Amino acid sequence: MIVDNALYHHGRRVPVGEGADQSLGSARVPCDPGDFQWIGIHEPSPDELQLIADTFGLHPLAVEDAGDSHQRPKLEHYGDTLFLVLKTLWYVDEEDAVETGEINMFVGADFVVTVRHGEGIDLADSRRDLEERAQVLEHGPMGVMYAICDRVVDEYERVGAALEEDVDEVEESVFSPARTDDANRIYVLKREIAEFRRAVMPLREPMRKLAMEGFDTTGVEGHVTSETATYFRDVSDHLQRVSELVDNLDVLLSTAFDAHLARISVQQNEDMRKISAGAALVVVPTLIAGIYGMNFEHMPELGWVYGYPFALVLMVGVATGLFAWFKKSGWL
Amino acid sequence: MIVDNALYHHGRRVPVGEGADQSLGSARVPCDPGDFQWIGIHEPSPDELQLIADTFGLHPLAVEDAGDSHQRPKLEHYGDTLFLVLKTLWYVDEEDAVETGEINMFVGADFVVTVRHGEGIDLADSRRDLEERAQVLEHGPMGVMYAICDRVVDEYERVGAALEEDVDEVEESVFSPARTDDANRIYVLKREIAEFRRAVMPLREPMRKLAMEGFDTTGVEGHVTSETATYFRDVSDHLQRVSELVDNLDVLLSTAFDAHLARISVQQNEDMRKISAGAALVVVPTLIAGIYGMNFEHMPELGWVYGYPFALVLMVGVATGLFAWFKKSGWL
Amino acid sequence: MIVDNALYHHGRRVPVGEGADQSLGSARVPCDPGDFQWIGIHEPSPDELQLIADTFGLHPLAVEDAGDSHQRPKLEHYGDTLFLVLKTLWYVDEEDAVETGEINMFVGADFVVTVRHGEGIDLADSRRDLEERAQVLEHGPMGVMYAICDRVVDEYERVGAALEEDVDEVEESVFSPARTDDANRIYVLKREIAEFRRAVMPLREPMRKLAMEGFDTTGVEGHVTSETATYFRDVSDHLQRVSELVDNLDVLLSTAFDAHLARISVQQNEDMRKISAGAALVVVPTLIAGIYGMNFEHMPELGWVYGYPFALVLMVGVATGLFAWFKKSGWL
Amino acid sequence: MIVDNALYHHGRRVPVGEGADQSLGSARVPCDPGDFQWIGIHEPSPDELQLIADTFGLHPLAVEDAGDSHQRPKLEHYGDTLFLVLKTLWYVDEEDAVETGEINMFVGADFVVTVRHGEGIDLADSRRDLEERAQVLEHGPMGVMYAICDRVVDEYERVGAALEEDVDEVEESVFSPARTDDANRIYVLKREIAEFRRAVMPLREPMRKLAMEGFDTTGVEGHVTSETATYFRDVSDHLQRVSELVDNLDVLLSTAFDAHLARISVQQNEDMRKISAGAALVVVPTLIAGIYGMNFEHMPELGWVYGYPFALVLMVGVATGLFAWFKKSGWL
Amino acid sequence: MIVDNALYHHGRRVPVGEGADQSLGSARVPCDPGDFQWIGIHEPSPDELQLIADTFGLHPLAVEDAGDSHQRPKLEHYGDTLFLVLKTLWYVDEEDAVETGEINMFVGADFVVTVRHGEGIDLADSRRDLEERAQVLEHGPMGVMYAICDRVVDEYERVGAALEEDVDEVEESVFSPARTDDANRIYVLKREIAEFRRAVMPLREPMRKLAMEGFDTTGVEGHVTSETATYFRDVSDHLQRVSELVDNLDVLLSTAFDAHLARISVQQNEDMRKISAGAALVVVPTLIAGIYGMNFEHMPELGWVYGYPFALVLMVGVATGLFAWFKKSGWL
Repeated sequence: MIVDNALYHHGRRVPVGEGADQSLGSARVPCDPGDFQWIGIHEPSPDELQLIADTFGLHPLAVEDAGDSHQRPKLEHYGDTLFLVLKTLWYVDEEDAVETGEINMFVGADFVVTVRHGEGIDLADSRRDLEERAQVLEHGPMGVMYAICDRVVDEYERVGAALEEDVDEVEESVFSPARTDDANRIYVLKREIAEFRRAVMPLREPMRKLAMEGFDTTGVEGHVTSETATYFRDVSDHLQRVSELVDNLDVLLSTAFDAHLARISVQQNEDMRKISAGAALVVVPTLIAGIYGMNFEHMPELGWVYGYPFALVLMVGVATGLFAWFKKSGWL
Repeated sequence: MIVDNALYHHGRRVPVGEGADQSLGSARVPCDPGDFQWIGIHEPSPDELQLIADTFGLHPLAVEDAGDSHQRPKLEHYGDTLFLVLKTLWYVDEEDAVETGEINMFVGADFVVTVRHGEGIDLADSRRDLEERAQVLEHGPMGVMYAICDRVVDEYERVGAALEEDVDEVEESVFSPARTDDANRIYVLKREIAEFRRAVMPLREPMRKLAMEGFDTTGVEGHVTSETATYFRDVSDHLQRVSELVDNLDVLLSTAFDAHLARISVQQNEDMRKISAGAALVVVPTLIAGIYGMNFEHMPELGWVYGYPFALVLMVGVATGLFAWFKKSGWL
Repeated sequence: MIVDNALYHHGRRVPVGEGADQSLGSARVPCDPGDFQWIGIHEPSPDELQLIADTFGLHPLAVEDAGDSHQRPKLEHYGDTLFLVLKTLWYVDEEDAVETGEINMFVGADFVVTVRHGEGIDLADSRRDLEERAQVLEHGPMGVMYAICDRVVDEYERVGAALEEDVDEVEESVFSPARTDDANRIYVLKREIAEFRRAVMPLREPMRKLAMEGFDTTGVEGHVTSETATYFRDVSDHLQRVSELVDNLDVLLSTAFDAHLARISVQQNEDMRKISAGAALVVVPTLIAGIYGMNFEHMPELGWVYGYPFALVLMVGVATGLFAWFKKSGWL
Repeated sequence: MIVDNALYHHGRRVPVGEGADQSLGSARVPCDPGDFQWIGIHEPSPDELQLIADTFGLHPLAVEDAGDSHQRPKLEHYGDTLFLVLKTLWYVDEEDAVETGEINMFVGADFVVTVRHGEGIDLADSRRDLEERAQVLEHGPMGVMYAICDRVVDEYERVGAALEEDVDEVEESVFSPARTDDANRIYVLKREIAEFRRAVMPLREPMRKLAMEGFDTTGVEGHVTSETATYFRDVSDHLQRVSELVDNLDVLLSTAFDAHLARISVQQNEDMRKISAGAALVVVPTLIAGIYGMNFEHMPELGWVYGYPFALVLMVGVATGLFAWFKKSGWL
Repeated sequence: MIVDNALYHHGRRVPVGEGADQSLGSARVPCDPGDFQWIGIHEPSPDELQLIADTFGLHPLAVEDAGDSHQRPKLEHYGDTLFLVLKTLWYVDEEDAVETGEINMFVGADFVVTVRHGEGIDLADSRRDLEERAQVLEHGPMGVMYAICDRVVDEYERVGAALEEDVDEVEESVFSPARTDDANRIYVLKREIAEFRRAVMPLREPMRKLAMEGFDTTGVEGHVTSETATYFRDVSDHLQRVSELVDNLDVLLSTAFDAHLARISVQQNEDMRKISAGAALVVVPTLIAGIYGMNFEHMPELGWVYGYPFALVLMVGVATGLFAWFKKSGWL
């Protein structure tokens, strides 16, 4: 579905013939030097994609990739066009889960085509924000690329922060005295962090490249200035920060898991001692009862009037003594 | 066994003299510039290999490697010939097992020789598919190499997806309440993933090389264009994706294994507490029985008419109380 | 809040018009070649930052970073200005905790702007110290940068030493016979070490760059001599040392954790044996009591005058014998 | 001990004066351009080594290394001489152990000196094989170096295969129901694999160097052709394969060890449940006996004629019921 | 304390004016081209260091480092002077401990200043040895540097061998049937190995640099020949060997620790089974006693003359039977 299609002239949106905008879809709007056209698509049908590919002369292999939503992040040259794949991530609070989508971007000298898969980041919002920042739009297609990367990486930071909170909760749970099934939660979190890394890690190299002033963006050349590089350096830096954060969380989770294992062992130990102490409170009186259950003819206690209460008191006394002793030595 | 032998002219299969095709076997067909001959062999006898080696002037060390089916993936120059070793992988559903085969490929200026070991990927199919894609065949021997690599890596992705499902199953089993011998399954899966990696990892470097535009394919030179590089870049990218997937699975399995260990400990803990609680239900009544088994002369309960039922009720009552208490505190 | 604002001339502080110093805040003081102005700010408001940014022509992206206190350490060029982000660390004894702050530094040809977030290192102190070391101040803005880096890294070493002590304590606790909850402490320490590493590791590359004689500090150029490089090499070396120390502590903690796990197991083993031995001391006499509680008509002991004492002595004797045996074999 | 000493002329062994061969030992035989002399020594005395060092002008540091059998594999230039250290490995079936020896090789323009320590690979055999492969010997001293490296690496592959079998056995043992002390076997295997790696890993770099066509073999230059490089590339490739195999085995062993640990825990769990079930079969009848051992005056069962058999049947019945229940729920 | 001070002329020690030698201390002795002065200091006071720094024009930062004994190994240029920091290691048999000291070395065109901290390697011995090896001394200051590095690294090898023995002992202890607290020993050894690595690892890079023929030793230039490089290559190689040895020991210790953990589990398992078997030997006879303690009126055994002995024999018989059964099934 073609979501939006506009022409940008000196950093300002220029109305394209109303009909042309939506119905013609991917039709190429002739533009002056320095102008560029930006088409946004969401989960396109193969036909839509093909139409756009034909219009802008996109490479079949890149188009094939763009139609699929299981790419890994990458930046590639196809002739005069730059092709960028980004994973979008967002955090669904209700499920404590990280969801993933994908943005594919074709950037040429005078056009940008963005193909979005899945939900998450609303490029229409990004476009509106961007249209108000003429100084970025003035950098042309590379400015659009920057704006989208910036938006996506900002979202990564939000997800990273949410994961950090989850790790804090797990940590608290591990060290709380309650018996909790932290192994399961840690596993789920580790899995999400792995998902996160698969989105973030491969993107670092492309961002690093775009942040280098001399990076060869054949065909889009006219638009790459040292200023653009500065912008991408900022994105690259944020990406670096979020990836370090997540690496750190991963290591912390492993440590928390080990601590969880230790805690299970310690608890088993304590349980065992409690159980043994409890058992002692029963078996020792049983021994006493056994003694007075012996059938010797000459057992003076048996004839005492208060023999029975004496025996009971003895049992309770011994049990109480044991109880106090176990308490003192930390077994109960 | 020589499976097929054909001449390709401008991306089209050209009939070779009928007899020549099969019986002459490896006989070199004279060809115009731009044409090339493609011979496919399956588990050749040493004699067949030698015949072909002599015909196309292949290097003895490469021929020795091609006759053996335990090579590691690699790309090498032997004079004017490129020699590529690929591991083929396929997933056997019935056994949840990954099987491996091997394809060795000699690529010269005007010939391709493919030597296949084991089952798995049917090169005859690939050839038929390829013959319908003239635009690839037009790239000559390098086009054939691309088509086969693409086919093999596609199969890797299928195997990767199957392994992913297996890991999901293991994961579910680990976190299910049932007592399952997950250690064994995890081990087997890890072993298969190791097998997988041994096929995939060493192939990354050759694919990366072929994806570089300036890569020196001496003797095959005339056929390497920036277009071919683009094709191999696509293969390389898929390879990268599948190898990241499998690395990720490996890490997940390790985490799942740790969770399995934690679960065993937790279960032992729970069993121990259940057992102890169960024991308490027996030993406390035993103590009561012991008390009324004492032989004191003055034990008023002994003379009661309802002394015996009272004792039984006491036992059952205490046991019931304990049972309720254990239930409440989660020990039973 | 603007903390200090001064002009330095040939390594000496030059009084700036009193009013100008504080109230004008970020006003640029005209200076001769070789002189430079140093403004120190602490947790600035966005307006203060903007004022300074306008005065010295700082890049908006860098200014945005400087206003935020969650940057990762980095060194960047923005046009003629070097922008350095440092994490400050200090150790709070009472809580055994590592606290973090941040220093952002803009260094131009004739100015230094330091923006500090959080407590920790008092730059006013550093400034006073530095003002007494004319030979460092003579190196101009880069000299100030060196002095601050040196101060910050010195503090890292102090924190590293404090962590080392903490690790020593944990180690002692792990191998002491007492039952201690070392898992928790080890976790907390590991977390702090991770914090530490996040401050220290990314700083190594910037320091290494500044230590290279030929490093291009565009715009600040006039001040970078091989002598400055020597100074930064010293900082870089200390940074290397402290990061190796902390890596080492991290590994030691992991080993200590493993040892802690082993110790828990060993203790459980010993407890189990003690418990069993203790149980034996009760159940064996119980068996004896059971025997003399049997109702056979012909049991000679029952008729003995000293039968009862005999039985008691037997019980005590057997228990004592068992006790001695368990003691000898290390079970009690 | 000088084992053999011969002159090779155009790939053919040329008889050296009989006496000269053995008694003169290291005497240098004058040779035509293209000829070379090959002396083989086994565990030489310091004097023998010195004699040879003087004759061929070997560097004292290399000679010192060659006299010692605890070198690490390396390739070095000493002036005009290449010095190669190889570890030889072989597998002793009876002890399931990997043994190590060492070959030191000096290669000059017209001589090869091989110094062997320990048993294992019989260089006399290698020499005889080589003398029948004139096309290799024609490459002169570098041909000899190739042949020996090839022989040594072939042996590595045999050892690797033997270790693979051992790992398979361990794996089977870990997952067999029998209680086996796999920890010990795994440790021993890991130790042997470490030994293996110490022989193989450092050799990869020298082989890689020799496989590069442009590698500077000063003084031996005349003999290094692209053909020689091809040969060494083959050795290098086999070395790579065997080192990947062994890395893989190491990882498998670690996984097998973890599985072993899990199995111990599972077995302990099962034992504990069996024991508890067994105990229940005794303590419940004991409770029943205790009940009928109570001294109440009014216990109707006590007066029954079949009271006693009834009690016994009750005991057996309860025990049988419990037994069946435990069997069903998998505790026995 | 200035330990020694001498002038070397063509590899020979030249007497310096007696008084000058010790009392003038660091006075610079005028020397001919090719001569050099070597001053050895042990734990100098700040004043002594300053005196020497002034005499030879040493850089203040290097002098500061040399006065401190907690440097990490490094090689640095300060103007015309090379500054090398070495950690010395030695093994104290009585305590099974590795001790560390430090040697700082300033090497200029015509002087060497060695500053030693801590005990360990006696440089006076090294000097005497060196004075007898004129061919090394002839290489001038770099020859002295080589000799000291060689001495230090030799000592590393001795320490490495001692650690290897310790690891062998631990290994034996882990797999011995005795219950030993191996966790503690392994921890201590790991700590010492970490210490060792901190001394050895950072030294590899400096040694590698000195082993490169073209290494720029500004100011000491005249003395660096390809021969010197050969010497340092030898040191570098030994360093490599010892660092591989120690890495290997570290890995072995980790494996041994895991095996220790497994052994604890296995022992606990065995203990549990022994305890249970032991318990069975008591509770089963207790059940029998309980049965004959029941108060049924019609229990024929109670009236038998040999009822009591029969019961005792029954108890012993059952216990013996159980004992035999447990023995057979490996529980006792």
